[in-house]
Amino acid sequence: MHALRSPAMRPLSLSPTSIPSRPLCFRFLALSLPLFPNSRSPSKYLARTTVGPRFCVRSCGSVKAKPSSELRKREGGGSEPDEKLRALRELFSKPGIGIDAYIVPSQDAHQSEFIAECYTRRAYISGFAGSAGTAVVTKDKAALWTDGRYFLQAENQLNSSWILMRAGNLGVPTTSEWLNDVLAPGCRIGIDPFLFSSDAAEELKEAIAKKNHELVLLYNINLVDEVWKERPKPPNKPVRIHDLKFAGLDVASKLSFLRAEFIDAGASAIIISMLDEVAWLLNLRGSDVPHSPVVYAYLLVKTDTAELFVDSSKITPEVMDHLKNAGVQLRPYNKILSEIENLAKQGGNLWLDTTSVNAAIVNIYKSACDKYLNKNSKARVQDFIGRSAIPSGVYRASPISLAKAVKNDAELQGMRNSHLRDAAALAHFWVWLEEEINKGAKLTEVEVADKLLEFRSMQDGFIDTSFDTISASGANGAVIHYKPEPGSCRVLDVEKLFLLDSGAQYVDGTTDITRTVHFGEPTPRQKECFTRVLQGHIALDQAVFPENTPGFVLDAFARSSLWKIGLDYRHGTGHGVGAALNVHEGPQSISFRYGNLTSLQRGMVVSNEPGYYEDHAFGIRIENLLSVVEINTPNHFGGIGYLGFEKLTFVPIQTKMVDSALLSSVEINWLNDYHAQVWEKVSPLLDGSARQWLWDNTRPLPIQ
Amino acid sequence: MHALRSPAMRPLSLSPTSIPSRPLCFRFLALSLPLFPNSRSPSKYLARTTVGPRFCVRSCGSVKAKPSSELRKREGGGSEPDEKLRALRELFSKPGIGIDAYIVPSQDAHQSEFIAECYTRRAYISGFAGSAGTAVVTKDKAALWTDGRYFLQAENQLNSSWILMRAGNLGVPTTSEWLNDVLAPGCRIGIDPFLFSSDAAEELKEAIAKKNHELVLLYNINLVDEVWKERPKPPNKPVRIHDLKFAGLDVASKLSFLRAEFIDAGASAIIISMLDEVAWLLNLRGSDVPHSPVVYAYLLVKTDTAELFVDSSKITPEVMDHLKNAGVQLRPYNKILSEIENLAKQGGNLWLDTTSVNAAIVNIYKSACDKYLNKNSKARVQDFIGRSAIPSGVYRASPISLAKAVKNDAELQGMRNSHLRDAAALAHFWVWLEEEINKGAKLTEVEVADKLLEFRSMQDGFIDTSFDTISASGANGAVIHYKPEPGSCRVLDVEKLFLLDSGAQYVDGTTDITRTVHFGEPTPRQKECFTRVLQGHIALDQAVFPENTPGFVLDAFARSSLWKIGLDYRHGTGHGVGAALNVHEGPQSISFRYGNLTSLQRGMVVSNEPGYYEDHAFGIRIENLLSVVEINTPNHFGGIGYLGFEKLTFVPIQTKMVDSALLSSVEINWLNDYHAQVWEKVSPLLDGSARQWLWDNTRPLPIQ
Repeated sequence: MHALRSPAMRPLSLSPTSIPSRPLCFRFLALSLPLFPNSRSPSKYLARTTVGPRFCVRSCGSVKAKPSSELRKREGGGSEPDEKLRALRELFSKPGIGIDAYIVPSQDAHQSEFIAECYTRRAYISGFAGSAGTAVVTKDKAALWTDGRYFLQAENQLNSSWILMRAGNLGVPTTSEWLNDVLAPGCRIGIDPFLFSSDAAEELKEAIAKKNHELVLLYNINLVDEVWKERPKPPNKPVRIHDLKFAGLDVASKLSFLRAEFIDAGASAIIISMLDEVAWLLNLRGSDVPHSPVVYAYLLVKTDTAELFVDSSKITPEVMDHLKNAGVQLRPYNKILSEIENLAKQGGNLWLDTTSVNAAIVNIYKSACDKYLNKNSKARVQDFIGRSAIPSGVYRASPISLAKAVKNDAELQGMRNSHLRDAAALAHFWVWLEEEINKGAKLTEVEVADKLLEFRSMQDGFIDTSFDTISASGANGAVIHYKPEPGSCRVLDVEKLFLLDSGAQYVDGTTDITRTVHFGEPTPRQKECFTRVLQGHIALDQAVFPENTPGFVLDAFARSSLWKIGLDYRHGTGHGVGAALNVHEGPQSISFRYGNLTSLQRGMVVSNEPGYYEDHAFGIRIENLLSVVEINTPNHFGGIGYLGFEKLTFVPIQTKMVDSALLSSVEINWLNDYHAQVWEKVSPLLDGSARQWLWDNTRPLPIQ
Repeated sequence: MHALRSPAMRPLSLSPTSIPSRPLCFRFLALSLPLFPNSRSPSKYLARTTVGPRFCVRSCGSVKAKPSSELRKREGGGSEPDEKLRALRELFSKPGIGIDAYIVPSQDAHQSEFIAECYTRRAYISGFAGSAGTAVVTKDKAALWTDGRYFLQAENQLNSSWILMRAGNLGVPTTSEWLNDVLAPGCRIGIDPFLFSSDAAEELKEAIAKKNHELVLLYNINLVDEVWKERPKPPNKPVRIHDLKFAGLDVASKLSFLRAEFIDAGASAIIISMLDEVAWLLNLRGSDVPHSPVVYAYLLVKTDTAELFVDSSKITPEVMDHLKNAGVQLRPYNKILSEIENLAKQGGNLWLDTTSVNAAIVNIYKSACDKYLNKNSKARVQDFIGRSAIPSGVYRASPISLAKAVKNDAELQGMRNSHLRDAAALAHFWVWLEEEINKGAKLTEVEVADKLLEFRSMQDGFIDTSFDTISASGANGAVIHYKPEPGSCRVLDVEKLFLLDSGAQYVDGTTDITRTVHFGEPTPRQKECFTRVLQGHIALDQAVFPENTPGFVLDAFARSSLWKIGLDYRHGTGHGVGAALNVHEGPQSISFRYGNLTSLQRGMVVSNEPGYYEDHAFGIRIENLLSVVEINTPNHFGGIGYLGFEKLTFVPIQTKMVDSALLSSVEINWLNDYHAQVWEKVSPLLDGSARQWLWDNTRPLPIQ
């Protein structure tokens, strides 16, 4: 799965109207200015990259995923929009509220990429169900910002009370610009501070201050929840232990590492709010959101205790024991603010990553520190010998991000194993699809995606898809963030290219793979483009580079062959992937976003997914996952290690698409060697027609 | 000619002990923290890159260069160092001075790479003649900082009154750290503010303020000049007009462009202090320093006038007419400060590039503005309608740097033509050298460099070398910044590699080329390394990339082949080159310095010089100059142009050094095609043995 490149195709665009397109990858690779202010980026370098989290169309997580077709039936606009807006506005003047406008972003309280349905407030209030958007309601206006992917959908789903703000189009203001324009100076603009990262809230506060507006943080009430009739219950499926044989490191060791980190930074506690970071630290997995095996929780780690703020109904006795053994205590999810306040009252120095921790937590902590200082100002002066007990925040990027990105041997083995089972599922799928197409079956893109899910769910340890499958025939493949919908999607066409970008969550690993195939005869143009994308894929796969090389240094390798004929693609080449966790993670990336200086390190997993997209015609992408490994080079200039990649993905690349006259003998050898490995590793998991399909599709190309 | 890579080989090292090594290229490619505070970088991205300017060993510039052997005889330490220090310290307590320490940097007042002998104050006072260093003298101590290249030389040249500070070694303090350590708090530290860029002086001021030291700017006296017996006269050779047929654009047009730029930025005047910028703007060339055809001058451009501050004895009647025609008036060189002061008094808003303009000018302007404000505070309030006449600085990077880097057609044609004549000189040189070696002659590195100068000086329009020739046999080639000295240099060895990095200034262009050859039989190791360097050279030469691509994106192409076997080189791959101007210029570069986001643009000239250096064994570098050109790609994805390179250098690459089994057929074709072009373009300029040598050395390799 790839991520979007800004239209200008160059470093960080500062155009106020630029906008992200595809949420799945945005947080990791795309270039854009925040449209939706409370976005989270995996590292500080990405602080200006924005994403609207994926609108969750499933009620609560389940261990077995539902097919896309069923899920999608529940999407769609609401029926009483005026009534919703009326009810919302009525709250504006209630005591303790007193606001002139309210901003409803797409996010949950943890800056998650995929969120639970009960938190899809923006979708509820606006009726617009797309994944990315921000709703702003004033006393007499309501406006919805979304990007180019969703203009049509928003036009259909918004009723006449709403103004559609086509972000990215010339002259379209940002939310704060619009508020500064339509409100008289000195208004009060309300937000739910849980739904904005601290940094995003600060940015918003500054922007609206230009017109003397005040940002009002409504801690105790979410106005949309108040008017949401039949709001879904929060997810409550049980949490499970992520087996040590897959995790590779026990919770106590991870907590020790974390404590050493925060003590070293001068902190006495740290608050972890990213759900994948909590899951990784505690070797727990959940089913609260689609695609990511996480549970809604905060983790507060102090020098001698650790407290997990979570709905206790999700905690089985087994998990309770697991946590107890690691010295982790349970607290109610909604007690996080009071505990943070207590910490400040006790003089605790809290490590806060303000790019991810929400404004509610950060502001409560800061206020409590201020109160402590006022109350203890005399004592403070007297006590000031050596290190003081005055509470103060340590504002830094979370140390978990990098620790989680560098996989240990057990995690890597889980990734390898799950990829082979995933490859087996794909072999079954592809042989089925080719047979159906040959029989003349008329299959829609959604039906094909559902069938793929069926094959995957037969594999051991399968849990869920790792993102919404991109099943795109013909011109749909050129819509980089295409998502087929049951009513409108295409039927697969034997005369057209078919692009399939999909992935799965298994108990031991996470997959993400793209293949592009033709069921009939590709045109010379399609073959040339495919071959150049493949050359880029091979160049990155085969790269060897010194330790301490940032990922962006390798990005041009994947584009070089396309550039030679004036082609390119508007997305990054690689994103980080979690081990049985989020399919997108930081801090590393392989992209033209030159600001991310995170070096590629042994054990990191990245995608390798160059592509080419010809508008209204076809899309091509070839994606494998790779892990970063040490290469046994004959020299070690500089006294350092040299790194390269080990392939995790073993699924045939359609040789029919390759114009081998364009390939060097080294490149042909790469392809033949890859296919030999695919056969060797995956054939033992197959029999019958799937095994035959694998054999047929791993035959070597002749060397020219 | 290449530039150094920091030992860590990775982005900007912040180690306070890191240090540059080779001045010729430092300003453009190297990574280091300022050791010598008043360095100039070609763009703001390079602000932390430092260089000690090349110590000028020639008295005054002359149109014909002197051979290296003669020049070098004049180097060496002084004879009465204690007396010098005594005399210097005596000045510390004079009225109007009153300082406790004095810092003597290597720079001139213009941050030049090469400087005139009369400005080599650091060399005079310390006796250490190396190109890079900073001397600091307190009332009882004297210390000299230099880097690893010069430790041995400094040990030999410094007398016992001096402490040698081996910058780059563990625990060695910076100059300001040392001053903060050895002086009692609250001292006065003097500098000549002309010899520090404004930024460098500010940095120094801040660093010494930690110990309450005051930075004392001594505007009217340079203490070293005061004690310098028989100080050389400032250069006074005549200035010449750079013919419009080579410059391509007249002075009036350049000044119009500049005026539009500064008016757009809200300024009413700009001060240009970099000598190559002055030369470029006025289509003038000088002979004040070695290697760079520039003249010591400042240029102050206002909306309706332009004033050149220069020693008028250098201005011939012809040049006077040329300047008059462009509306440029002459002012004495030493009147710059009073004119800057007048400008502020008249309410002028001056554009100042504080990375290059010296602290004397910037501080005089700021003080004068402050005085104006105090004096006119009432009037100011009354007059405040629309744009005010209050003087204030516009602090921005000079707009000349980029304008100068993008060559026009005439400049490019001059570069092409001069490169062909340079290639002819090199053919004569190589055939001579091979014959001598075959005859068993024992030639030293310096003798060979002198002979090369002789061949070049026979070419039409030859003016000077463009930098000190690196003529390095065997292990000397691994000393990246090697400079052969008459007494100590090696004799060329038929059994060893010979690396020759040299260049020339012609009336129409500037050259810079490196070739590495073996006179006997290279080892398989040498051939493998050479071939991989060549593959990197080819990969960069053949790169095609979209408009707006920063140079660093291409750097990895040149390293990729070396990286595959765990090799690398510790310098950048390409620097900008002036057109009949400085051999190193910004703002672009092709390097691992990822901070320089300047994109490569049509008309820029860059070097392509990957290398490999094996300590105590051999050095390899292959360098051509390239100009950036539009490539006629069959597609233009993104609606933009795609760029690539046109070669300017046409000199054979020794095929004996190539292991063609490592090359792809595309790479072999590149080499054969290059040699065919070399023959076609250069053979018409040759006859006799040189022509035969060219024929012999441009024969195609067989395709495998």
